[in-house]
Amino acid sequence: MHNDKSVTSTIGHLIDGQLVTRAERTQPVFNPATGQSTTSVALAGKATVQDAIASAERAFPAWRNTPPLKRARVLSKLKVLLEENADQIAAMITAEHGKVLSDAHGELQRGIENVEYASYAPELLKGEHSRNVGPGIDSWSEFQALGVTAGITPFNFPAMVPLWMWPMAVACGNTFVLKPSERDPGSTLFIAQLALEAGLPPGVLNVVNGDKEAVDALLQDPRVKAVSFVGSTPIAEYIYAEGCRHGKRVQALGGAKNHAIVMPDADIGNAVSAMMGAAYGSCGERCMAVPLIVCVGDEVAGKMIAGLSAAIGDMKVGPGTDEGNDMGPLVTRQHFEKVRGYVDAGVAEGATLLVDGRGLEVPGHEDGYFLGPCLFDHVKPGMKIYQEEIFGPVLGIVRVKTLQEGMDLINAHEYGNGTCIFTRDGEAARYFSDHIQVGMVGVNVPLPVPVAYHSFGGWKRSLFGDLHAYGPDAVRFYTKRKTITQRWPGAGVREGAVFSFPSSR
Amino acid sequence: MHNDKSVTSTIGHLIDGQLVTRAERTQPVFNPATGQSTTSVALAGKATVQDAIASAERAFPAWRNTPPLKRARVLSKLKVLLEENADQIAAMITAEHGKVLSDAHGELQRGIENVEYASYAPELLKGEHSRNVGPGIDSWSEFQALGVTAGITPFNFPAMVPLWMWPMAVACGNTFVLKPSERDPGSTLFIAQLALEAGLPPGVLNVVNGDKEAVDALLQDPRVKAVSFVGSTPIAEYIYAEGCRHGKRVQALGGAKNHAIVMPDADIGNAVSAMMGAAYGSCGERCMAVPLIVCVGDEVAGKMIAGLSAAIGDMKVGPGTDEGNDMGPLVTRQHFEKVRGYVDAGVAEGATLLVDGRGLEVPGHEDGYFLGPCLFDHVKPGMKIYQEEIFGPVLGIVRVKTLQEGMDLINAHEYGNGTCIFTRDGEAARYFSDHIQVGMVGVNVPLPVPVAYHSFGGWKRSLFGDLHAYGPDAVRFYTKRKTITQRWPGAGVREGAVFSFPSSR
Amino acid sequence: MHNDKSVTSTIGHLIDGQLVTRAERTQPVFNPATGQSTTSVALAGKATVQDAIASAERAFPAWRNTPPLKRARVLSKLKVLLEENADQIAAMITAEHGKVLSDAHGELQRGIENVEYASYAPELLKGEHSRNVGPGIDSWSEFQALGVTAGITPFNFPAMVPLWMWPMAVACGNTFVLKPSERDPGSTLFIAQLALEAGLPPGVLNVVNGDKEAVDALLQDPRVKAVSFVGSTPIAEYIYAEGCRHGKRVQALGGAKNHAIVMPDADIGNAVSAMMGAAYGSCGERCMAVPLIVCVGDEVAGKMIAGLSAAIGDMKVGPGTDEGNDMGPLVTRQHFEKVRGYVDAGVAEGATLLVDGRGLEVPGHEDGYFLGPCLFDHVKPGMKIYQEEIFGPVLGIVRVKTLQEGMDLINAHEYGNGTCIFTRDGEAARYFSDHIQVGMVGVNVPLPVPVAYHSFGGWKRSLFGDLHAYGPDAVRFYTKRKTITQRWPGAGVREGAVFSFPSSR
Amino acid sequence: MHNDKSVTSTIGHLIDGQLVTRAERTQPVFNPATGQSTTSVALAGKATVQDAIASAERAFPAWRNTPPLKRARVLSKLKVLLEENADQIAAMITAEHGKVLSDAHGELQRGIENVEYASYAPELLKGEHSRNVGPGIDSWSEFQALGVTAGITPFNFPAMVPLWMWPMAVACGNTFVLKPSERDPGSTLFIAQLALEAGLPPGVLNVVNGDKEAVDALLQDPRVKAVSFVGSTPIAEYIYAEGCRHGKRVQALGGAKNHAIVMPDADIGNAVSAMMGAAYGSCGERCMAVPLIVCVGDEVAGKMIAGLSAAIGDMKVGPGTDEGNDMGPLVTRQHFEKVRGYVDAGVAEGATLLVDGRGLEVPGHEDGYFLGPCLFDHVKPGMKIYQEEIFGPVLGIVRVKTLQEGMDLINAHEYGNGTCIFTRDGEAARYFSDHIQVGMVGVNVPLPVPVAYHSFGGWKRSLFGDLHAYGPDAVRFYTKRKTITQRWPGAGVREGAVFSFPSSR
Repeated sequence: MHNDKSVTSTIGHLIDGQLVTRAERTQPVFNPATGQSTTSVALAGKATVQDAIASAERAFPAWRNTPPLKRARVLSKLKVLLEENADQIAAMITAEHGKVLSDAHGELQRGIENVEYASYAPELLKGEHSRNVGPGIDSWSEFQALGVTAGITPFNFPAMVPLWMWPMAVACGNTFVLKPSERDPGSTLFIAQLALEAGLPPGVLNVVNGDKEAVDALLQDPRVKAVSFVGSTPIAEYIYAEGCRHGKRVQALGGAKNHAIVMPDADIGNAVSAMMGAAYGSCGERCMAVPLIVCVGDEVAGKMIAGLSAAIGDMKVGPGTDEGNDMGPLVTRQHFEKVRGYVDAGVAEGATLLVDGRGLEVPGHEDGYFLGPCLFDHVKPGMKIYQEEIFGPVLGIVRVKTLQEGMDLINAHEYGNGTCIFTRDGEAARYFSDHIQVGMVGVNVPLPVPVAYHSFGGWKRSLFGDLHAYGPDAVRFYTKRKTITQRWPGAGVREGAVFSFPSSR
Repeated sequence: MHNDKSVTSTIGHLIDGQLVTRAERTQPVFNPATGQSTTSVALAGKATVQDAIASAERAFPAWRNTPPLKRARVLSKLKVLLEENADQIAAMITAEHGKVLSDAHGELQRGIENVEYASYAPELLKGEHSRNVGPGIDSWSEFQALGVTAGITPFNFPAMVPLWMWPMAVACGNTFVLKPSERDPGSTLFIAQLALEAGLPPGVLNVVNGDKEAVDALLQDPRVKAVSFVGSTPIAEYIYAEGCRHGKRVQALGGAKNHAIVMPDADIGNAVSAMMGAAYGSCGERCMAVPLIVCVGDEVAGKMIAGLSAAIGDMKVGPGTDEGNDMGPLVTRQHFEKVRGYVDAGVAEGATLLVDGRGLEVPGHEDGYFLGPCLFDHVKPGMKIYQEEIFGPVLGIVRVKTLQEGMDLINAHEYGNGTCIFTRDGEAARYFSDHIQVGMVGVNVPLPVPVAYHSFGGWKRSLFGDLHAYGPDAVRFYTKRKTITQRWPGAGVREGAVFSFPSSR
Repeated sequence: MHNDKSVTSTIGHLIDGQLVTRAERTQPVFNPATGQSTTSVALAGKATVQDAIASAERAFPAWRNTPPLKRARVLSKLKVLLEENADQIAAMITAEHGKVLSDAHGELQRGIENVEYASYAPELLKGEHSRNVGPGIDSWSEFQALGVTAGITPFNFPAMVPLWMWPMAVACGNTFVLKPSERDPGSTLFIAQLALEAGLPPGVLNVVNGDKEAVDALLQDPRVKAVSFVGSTPIAEYIYAEGCRHGKRVQALGGAKNHAIVMPDADIGNAVSAMMGAAYGSCGERCMAVPLIVCVGDEVAGKMIAGLSAAIGDMKVGPGTDEGNDMGPLVTRQHFEKVRGYVDAGVAEGATLLVDGRGLEVPGHEDGYFLGPCLFDHVKPGMKIYQEEIFGPVLGIVRVKTLQEGMDLINAHEYGNGTCIFTRDGEAARYFSDHIQVGMVGVNVPLPVPVAYHSFGGWKRSLFGDLHAYGPDAVRFYTKRKTITQRWPGAGVREGAVFSFPSSR
Repeated sequence: MHNDKSVTSTIGHLIDGQLVTRAERTQPVFNPATGQSTTSVALAGKATVQDAIASAERAFPAWRNTPPLKRARVLSKLKVLLEENADQIAAMITAEHGKVLSDAHGELQRGIENVEYASYAPELLKGEHSRNVGPGIDSWSEFQALGVTAGITPFNFPAMVPLWMWPMAVACGNTFVLKPSERDPGSTLFIAQLALEAGLPPGVLNVVNGDKEAVDALLQDPRVKAVSFVGSTPIAEYIYAEGCRHGKRVQALGGAKNHAIVMPDADIGNAVSAMMGAAYGSCGERCMAVPLIVCVGDEVAGKMIAGLSAAIGDMKVGPGTDEGNDMGPLVTRQHFEKVRGYVDAGVAEGATLLVDGRGLEVPGHEDGYFLGPCLFDHVKPGMKIYQEEIFGPVLGIVRVKTLQEGMDLINAHEYGNGTCIFTRDGEAARYFSDHIQVGMVGVNVPLPVPVAYHSFGGWKRSLFGDLHAYGPDAVRFYTKRKTITQRWPGAGVREGAVFSFPSSR
């Protein structure tokens, strides 16, 4: 953590509708394709975070009283602005995260879908009404806003994951403090500014850049009623325990180690093509990436390896800004080292390294954090590359004899985020999807990320909390019920006008 | 029905994405503020209607297979176009219908809300899924499109009422043939063209202008699966009987005679102000207009009459294009004569005509169909002006002694579209809203038109059919359930890979 | 239509909680296993029907005001009584309809499930509530009872089909007049009496036995707001047109000709076993029976024929009261003749009659209406036995070369009630279920009758109306929306107590 | 904590369908009306709790795979058994808790309603299904069981609160370990035994009696996935923090200090009568009791005090088993001392004690824990009797000048469980219910406990967690989403039979 003098500008915070920078710690932001830092980001101290919370608290009463349809229309307008500014946003993502532009556009598109869903607020916020719960007694439940809510988001989807959270939170009438990743804060902040342009009142959405100090300030402040988090499992556990200890509601999404099962009856060509994207897309830095292929039978394994090896040979790795490239760099030098270390460990533990991406050179980008695609065979439970989330372009083949054996592996793993099966058989698919202990299941779909009108969440140690992210669950997460029970005693008004004008009778 | 030679252009049909005119009958379209015809409208013969239906049928398979999210996005885009073209659309409404511009904008705004709601299709079309209805058996219900659907709409809301229908119909995957009113077809057709611009494929929405011949062609064609209608009760009954006789599903919304009850504890100033708009807005040409005020007690009647008389004195009647005017002309000369006849009849039947709008002259607009606001006291059941829907600026005061007496009047009337009560008393409001035989109830709300995310419909002879217009009911009206029950027998694939590669074991 | 002197008792009507018989026409009721009549049934004239309607109308206000939970509890109690009286009810069904006892128990069980679902009324009747549709304005929709509703039910499920209708109708707060089949009225009436015992107030459910005169009296009476019908398509069309002509809402379920498709990859043993029950169960007198098997490829046809022929050889046909029997008699002599005529016609039209059930003799039951199972091969579109609903134990094999060819046949048929496919292939099942023009689809499920918490209904000429029978659709069919929009003006009460105790300030 | 030798029997645990007692600590159970102990209760050690958890875990797979309808039917049967055994259960409650029999019956009735609601499981567990989320891709969400769940319940509703929890948990497919209050464990255990009789398989519901050791064993065991708690706020906070720290989902309902506001326009007679039950019913030992009346204006205060004083004079306090009594004893001697201490404190802090129940003697029951009703005037924020939950028959009058002042008090209090307003004015009720920071609001309803088909929960420090107890929220709490996304590649089966029987073409 240091100040880089060569950086001329600093990305600050958005508080009460204003971009602010303060005399605080800063940290450089790097372009992973070049390894150069061109800007820095402010790291909010506790006071800055508290200012953001205070801004959100001030904005709450008026926003909460704004009719849901009006709130929704801000999001409709934001959707249009996001589409109009898509190229710029994608460029910002690629510059700070490294992913190829088409992938950045894809991320943004998914985020836009969440904005769309949040704009259905008038429908989503309908309460339940019961006439005559008893004679002359009615009762109804409303979904009311919580107050100030917060989100803490990871580096790998700087546009999308924040859009999972705050649009629905504010559609429900809450105000929000967002602490995005300090690795690639640019696009996140830019989108927040577009929200202001779309008509979101100042203070309804605040953005504070920062690190653990900012996180803790959010978790400990009694004014923050709810916290959404996406990141690694150790941090998710900390967020969940610490937020709940302070009486908040918390949803904390953590890590993953998603397995794909390929059955003997699968369409192998289809499976190979699907797996290439699932394993190496975005350099594997996705919680829904598939780093493990479980082949049922050696014949399947042989075919998959042949197909994957050929496809890897055709891959182009280089800066995300070049349209022809399939894969860009890893996000930071530190992460590059970590992922390379996993490849080393896999070799050391006895897995067979079929394709080795460690020596990759990208001419003209020698300081970029580029790692070529790696492919292991004979990966086994117990190996580090089997147990842990690598978050890099490292794919492993696991061999089993039956579907049940493959499912047992998955069910025994600590994570339960996503999984998929490749088969043509209805019964295999149904048995798998019913009995697998994983929250998001694909049948011939490699990355079963739910669409925006369903909800996102894993099982086991991939998610802590009651409710999944975005979709219908998010409506529940960002609201609390108020149940009213009502009976009216007679006041003489209805029975007649006698009390009002007795002389006229 | 004749061809007016002075008219130089003819408003035609929109079939298969093309504006078409044919050698058919035409009818002049008048500007009610001037009494002049500046254009004419084609009246589709049976063959033209069948061409439109054929176009819709051809467009159906591809549109039905288009994912709901994609269909919804066409509507999101249409919403933006409607907002951008609002001034032009409002001007077209005023030119052909006569209502003042602010009212035309209001109509369009309500229509836009229906487009917004239809754009929630991905949420609204979710089916119900049940795992394990029996051991290993799953079942789910889908809401599938019907095919070709049709709408027949009235003159009084040329923009809004069509937007109640076809956006949701096409959002659900249907294709549509719209037959709007031949009195003011301009804005309706213009909006349909905007839908094409927004990306609606040719043939998904077709517009045919016409009269009874076109209506009957729609009702009798077996390719049309569902018909939505808004108009008068005699026609609604005909549409319902004739459409159902041909095996279709039909929703037919008819006439109204909405009563407002003013209680002794009401805020009289508020009630007077609300009633002015409800009675005279859009010249009373609304099925949710309130032409009858039921005063509970003579004291209330006296206060309401005093307030209304003063407010009527301040009203400005004239061309809808002048911003200062509160009320424009009636829609046609024929309708003007009819409404004036009701006023004559009211006087003849013994009601007290407190304000007489029959002699109104609007300088410079002597040929316009202007009738001034009329106010009757002592209107009674049995009088023609009590029983029948006038659809003009004629407001009547009815005097009763108790709320119950007023409710008995309402419940005895053949119509049951809308009603409202003015009171501060919770029990009166609750008793009224629970026991009144009316579909749309206002409590201190004069025009209780449901918002777009609820549904619109009256009771008794104000609506024929099971399901109300727009909102959640419209989703059901424009879809049919398909229920799938599924069980998978074992195929040997799941149990093991043994059958596929026995040699490898 | 005549009076049979040998019959000593007459089954009457249930009106206002009382069993009544009147000097009206009667008709004998036969035991189809013996051909003997042991009782007769009264045929209600118009006056009797009007009395029942009047009873229902009187009972409506109090029942409608009874809290849903209390109404639901009557149904919970009825469920217990039905379980306790199951043997007696099954015996009554078998004695009048002929089906074997296990099948009668199965029918009752399905009916009980509908009673269970209706008992969820407090949940099912929840309306939608929206706080702040505008500033300070709330709106909500309620599902209110219609008033007097009616049901007209067929002979083939005398216990179940009435239980599809009236329990939900009364759970929703309506009162009901039921006109069951005059062929087998005993169990229907008995169940209605159990409902009284369970606590249903007199007049809430009335039963009138009768024929077309009674039906027309129901259709034409303005007090009846809704009619549910299950029967043949010509009558369904009549009911729909005539009921709608009188302004009612109507759902009319008609005939069927359900096809099963057997794919080359199907589990043939499973398909054979499933088809035996689907074709011959209840003697084929079910609208969800499967009288046509579409075999994809001659190889499949050959295997299916071999399996079915063997299984038919093992079937036992005789009185339904004997536990060992698989199939009982047809319902009436007239129907027996009609079904036998279809077999004759099939032979005449060139289909291959593989198994001929026409000569069946059941010793000791020579006057019973027994027809043995029949199996045709080479049934083709255009043949009478392909086009028409036989409603008897006649199964036909149709041969096609591809799934698409089979689906084209189904989609071209006038009916679209149920269908199923036998396959192990996920894609075939998905393509079939998405593109088949049929309301109820089974995947390896021969009779895809939806469970009670989904809804029952066909497409095309198998159902007329908007909403399917039972399940969630029934809640909509038996209720109408009322939408309330509410705003409260200030009354000085909230602002302060100043008006109440000015001296204390 | 000691063993009372005079007690001859010990209430044990229900594990794996068996009543078990072990060599563990025990604690006497007292009859609060006599102060005598007649039995004792076992206090489970960690090993016993782990056995119960193990039993629940073994029972889970089969129960989870049992169709929801079958699970629901066990609850329907339980409902019948609870009704049949109501007198015995009520007697057990009164003997151990002290409340009067009619109140015990009322509690049981509320519990039965929760069992009823859980029996709607087939409807409540429906997932959301979306056809064509992309071309040829379907997606659906299921609500799947969590596994082993647990409940920890308080002494004040030994029958009802457990029935809030486990019936819905098991209806959703979970298994359950219940740790009821060790003060009055009899009725809880008896009801669990009835569930076995109703058909609940052994191990699906286990009951362990115990104290903090048992609670901690539940909170720390990784096999327990969810914990529901009802009790005091300090314990609720501990449960929430400790359960979440171990990665579980937790809902923890805590204390309350419910205020009733009486407006100048209220029906005072009605308010007095309502407040008597709300303040003194069940001796005030309810989290929905109303211990504070906020009178708007001194005139209202005067009338309320007059009415309450008179009504208190008519109250009968004595053993709950005597039908004539209105109020029984407090639950334990310790609690009796604590409540009496609050009355002392109120006097010391300057509140005016209008009615003093401290000296009450119940002849023949001198050792019972009887405290007479107490009434304070001039209770003020800051006083202990204003701030803290007393859980006894102590009612305080607070005087304010306006509704807003009263609402400010309520919103400033740490608790936000229930509240109510007495008024006839629609606007006051609407303003109050919208802006009050309380989860359950009554309008002229003193104890706005939501009916079983809505959900129960407070705001602020009255509830920790995302989801309220029972009703629709409980379905979400006891399930987790699984979202499946499915696409089928062609397998050649659908396209034709050519691969299967080429020779036949």
